[in-house]
Amino acid sequence: MERCRLDLQNSQLASMSISDVAFRWGFNDAGHFSRAFKEQFGVTPREYRQDNPQPYDEAEPHHVNRGWPQEAIVHKRQRAAVFPDADPDRSGSRLDALFDKSSKHHHLQANENTVHWGYFSKALPAVLQINSGDKVTIEAVTQHGNDDRERMIDGDEGMERIYRWTPTSKNIDRRGAGPVDASVYGRGSGEGFGVHILTGPIAVKDAKPGDVLEVRILDVLARPSANPKHAGCCFGSNAATWWGFHYEDLLTEPKPREVVTIYQFDLKQDRPTAKAIYNYRWTPQVDPFGVVHSKMDYPGVPVDHQTIEKNMNVLKDISIPLRPHFGVIGVAPRETDLVDSVPPSYSGGNIDNWRVGKGSTIFLPVAVPDALLSIGDPHASQGDSEICGTAIECSLTGVFQIILHKRGELEDKPFADLTYPLIETPDEWVLLGFSHPNYLAELGEQAQSNVYEQSSLDLALKDAFRKMRRFLMTVHKLSEDEAISLISVAVDFGVTQVANGNWGIHAILRKELFDKARL
Amino acid sequence: MERCRLDLQNSQLASMSISDVAFRWGFNDAGHFSRAFKEQFGVTPREYRQDNPQPYDEAEPHHVNRGWPQEAIVHKRQRAAVFPDADPDRSGSRLDALFDKSSKHHHLQANENTVHWGYFSKALPAVLQINSGDKVTIEAVTQHGNDDRERMIDGDEGMERIYRWTPTSKNIDRRGAGPVDASVYGRGSGEGFGVHILTGPIAVKDAKPGDVLEVRILDVLARPSANPKHAGCCFGSNAATWWGFHYEDLLTEPKPREVVTIYQFDLKQDRPTAKAIYNYRWTPQVDPFGVVHSKMDYPGVPVDHQTIEKNMNVLKDISIPLRPHFGVIGVAPRETDLVDSVPPSYSGGNIDNWRVGKGSTIFLPVAVPDALLSIGDPHASQGDSEICGTAIECSLTGVFQIILHKRGELEDKPFADLTYPLIETPDEWVLLGFSHPNYLAELGEQAQSNVYEQSSLDLALKDAFRKMRRFLMTVHKLSEDEAISLISVAVDFGVTQVANGNWGIHAILRKELFDKARL
Repeated sequence: MERCRLDLQNSQLASMSISDVAFRWGFNDAGHFSRAFKEQFGVTPREYRQDNPQPYDEAEPHHVNRGWPQEAIVHKRQRAAVFPDADPDRSGSRLDALFDKSSKHHHLQANENTVHWGYFSKALPAVLQINSGDKVTIEAVTQHGNDDRERMIDGDEGMERIYRWTPTSKNIDRRGAGPVDASVYGRGSGEGFGVHILTGPIAVKDAKPGDVLEVRILDVLARPSANPKHAGCCFGSNAATWWGFHYEDLLTEPKPREVVTIYQFDLKQDRPTAKAIYNYRWTPQVDPFGVVHSKMDYPGVPVDHQTIEKNMNVLKDISIPLRPHFGVIGVAPRETDLVDSVPPSYSGGNIDNWRVGKGSTIFLPVAVPDALLSIGDPHASQGDSEICGTAIECSLTGVFQIILHKRGELEDKPFADLTYPLIETPDEWVLLGFSHPNYLAELGEQAQSNVYEQSSLDLALKDAFRKMRRFLMTVHKLSEDEAISLISVAVDFGVTQVANGNWGIHAILRKELFDKARL
Repeated sequence: MERCRLDLQNSQLASMSISDVAFRWGFNDAGHFSRAFKEQFGVTPREYRQDNPQPYDEAEPHHVNRGWPQEAIVHKRQRAAVFPDADPDRSGSRLDALFDKSSKHHHLQANENTVHWGYFSKALPAVLQINSGDKVTIEAVTQHGNDDRERMIDGDEGMERIYRWTPTSKNIDRRGAGPVDASVYGRGSGEGFGVHILTGPIAVKDAKPGDVLEVRILDVLARPSANPKHAGCCFGSNAATWWGFHYEDLLTEPKPREVVTIYQFDLKQDRPTAKAIYNYRWTPQVDPFGVVHSKMDYPGVPVDHQTIEKNMNVLKDISIPLRPHFGVIGVAPRETDLVDSVPPSYSGGNIDNWRVGKGSTIFLPVAVPDALLSIGDPHASQGDSEICGTAIECSLTGVFQIILHKRGELEDKPFADLTYPLIETPDEWVLLGFSHPNYLAELGEQAQSNVYEQSSLDLALKDAFRKMRRFLMTVHKLSEDEAISLISVAVDFGVTQVANGNWGIHAILRKELFDKARL
């Protein structure tokens, strides 16, 4: 029992669940362990872990090589000063003013005041506060709008405000978790260490670390072009980029190269699809501040279409059935302040699993007060692995219902003891494994860089296996031997993504395996 | 062009397709390259590669650390001497006598004369010769029969003959590609370096290296228990073994351990399923020759059920929908004589992909004269990854149609330029990637050991990506940029297996992506 207590304090084991700690030291029943622990120490193991701050969870956040909290705080204050009243949702200076008690269905538009670009932060003020059970319509917009500005930005007020960038200012200066003064690569504020436009964060009333947030995706809607030239049409962009798995492995010249393919959606059929319109190779682009981007190394750089050569008639006679979903759904991590939005982790984030679409639910472990939920990186379709670095990136609006499960009420729920993002579809449970289940806690001071160097699918499979074993042992009360046999003969493991630093493997458990609905 | 010619001779590049060699040196069209090559050198690139024997393809096979061709030849002759007339299919001493010209539908029973255990060999005499287009009903039997002899062997003449093992002799002595005298570990003849009972090999008339063999799976039938106590019932075994991915990562005591779970099938419903009956932990077993097997280190060791403890009522209320398929379908590799049946390779073999079931087709590149097709390792169900080392292993009988495609007639076929096993299901093309696409050619003299040490899913994903890119560029005439975009947004990569030394990732291309049926 003492060994269990020590394990629960050990930040190196932050990603190990309480059940696994119990199993590890000979307890075969997590419930029994929990009661015995409480008897001995006066608190439950969960409370004990929560209430014994681990080294990385200090009040003064660590300086990691991609996070610069001081600058972030400065920037945050500047931003608050510049746009105090720009959006009705943020007209009050206090959080409570954001909360309309009479409303059960909120609407969160995307504009420069309601999005953050390229990072999560527990220090970001919420743009909306909701109650458990409320519905929220959330506009999520793509960071690839400038790949074809005419189709994806022009005429769209929210997009134009978000992307506004003149030689003297940007509406959203920070893009990424890097330093504001771009002292590392000189790409721009935030250095592009993180690329996603994220709507939020949303504060969930009464949410506390240890709770679980259930995010139901009730509907997903395309965001049509607002340009009269393309009225009613919907578009997306796929970029084969330097961070893609394919990039060092190109066959044909010129090598290397980055390629953008613009897709248009046909939503009128019973079977909505995407068709490619044209593609082009990236050429060095000069941003409004005069920085030359020879690669796609900073999000939202306007592409001058005079400098590129369009290849029309690409992917002829090919229609890709849509799988609309949100690449990023996450709560703010507790480990450090500014967190690059690219690597997914225990708190969700850049999951990039196409199963996170209409009719699905994602469960996230709350890590900081108010949960601070953000949503973005919408995709029209993606294959398991996202091999070239991106999906069909496009703006989508989602209708969500958000339910808070308090930590004291989790017992016997499938998402009890949750230490990772868990997806439920109508027919499946999808458990997300990562090379590093909580890289911020595991990889030390340089975690935000190290995660890019140290990922492998072998590690991600190990993590997905462990999570599935635990799920079967705790939720379905199987022995370890039963769980392992069932996994081998009936659970499918797939490659979620190899694009996001912290590579992912998911494990799919079909509900039909169980004769009786236990959940 | 000269660089291409050199690449085609280079055994290090044996797994690189001719198209990829062409793309690599600036040719954008494989057909154009082929014509230009022929103009310059007088032969097609395929013929050139085939006719310029590579170092590993010498008449005298290399001695690799698991292959002992001399002993194999001795054993082969012994075997021929012992059972010259035991089976009507082998009553003639010359291959042609095996071929019944009047029959278009052959039946290949499984018994000690028609199976080989644990290895592929280009030197094995065929047990049946067929014409292209013929149908063959093939009994494939499980190597896990002795996990529950009463249910899976007793009363079944073929199984009893295959498994027959007394203190003085075994009907099938060699099990695996190791030495006959078991000088390495002393486990037994063949050392268990390879475990699968394989029915065959079948000689396909006129098959030559460079041709493609199409194996259509028309039907798959369960093999009921022949024991009157279990009349009409069908059973299988799942073994969580020392070669499983989970083995070093067990949570609960005793660690480590191997566990067998026996399943029974319910075939009477619309939806056939498997249910577990009981499980047991492996205990040291003494084989009839007196060798103690403290682990499951040799196939076909009889398990004394007096020494094990059965846990009944395991996996209660869980029914696993069946996915009947053949784990092993392969032709004999050319690189060396005795090849361990465990690692899959370019020639197929232990693929362990559950999509190789009824209604599917697998295409294999012929590597030696007569192709020498063998089939075995039948499974009732498996999850993508086969995490614990095995599936639900059971005996199955398949009805196959086998079609030979001559190398001169492959152009514009989806399986032209095939260097790997390719699966076609009614709705999908499934391309199989491996850590080492042709490990026998790539990993040197110690290939059959090295492959177990050097596998990773990252390598397998790279291989699967390359194969899918090539498929789209050659079969669908896409540019590399088009192929990469399509892969990222629409192709799903999954973990085939991490149980077989040479780990596998498959890439799934849905036929519905293509507006016009091109294939």
